[in-house]
Amino acid sequence: MTSHWTNSEKTVARLAFESALALETGALLATLKRKAAQATDPEDIWALHDFLTARRREMDDKYDFRYSQLVFVFARLLREGWLQEEALRGLGQEKLQAIRLLARG
Amino acid sequence: MTSHWTNSEKTVARLAFESALALETGALLATLKRKAAQATDPEDIWALHDFLTARRREMDDKYDFRYSQLVFVFARLLREGWLQEEALRGLGQEKLQAIRLLARG
Repeated sequence: MTSHWTNSEKTVARLAFESALALETGALLATLKRKAAQATDPEDIWALHDFLTARRREMDDKYDFRYSQLVFVFARLLREGWLQEEALRGLGQEKLQAIRLLARG
Repeated sequence: MTSHWTNSEKTVARLAFESALALETGALLATLKRKAAQATDPEDIWALHDFLTARRREMDDKYDFRYSQLVFVFARLLREGWLQEEALRGLGQEKLQAIRLLARG
């Protein structure tokens, strides 16, 4: 079943979700620091602002912790490399299969 | 007259305007670099994004090079310190008086 989440699956899901989010925001922070350090022109300010606006929208959209969405969320995070499959150990086989299938794109 | 701008006044105005804009964007770039360098937490990313969003709106609003608005624009720039009165030398007396008066307020 992919629609029902047991308590232990919810714990696994929460940890996996938070770990991917921390990894991606850490990478974004590093990118932000690099871009800011390299900025020389006033235009670079607004380019950096546009970049952050787009990344914020993308991440707000992506990190959606609704149980109805988690299979899709984890598939995307696997595909993008923010999550490793080991982090999902403890989820039911059907969920893992669905996530793997969706992760292939 | 504050509504009619001669060609030489237009040149003075353009230079004063561009010089204030360059000063303020330079200061903003320095602030951005400092904030990015000091950021440690993922939340700092979004705080910096919010900061840039607000500054961009404020500057888009402030730097309005319409001749009907310039007296107000220059008054604000004087008041905020992005412009020195010397930069306005060459504008007619009425314009200068209006700008000084508005700058006090």
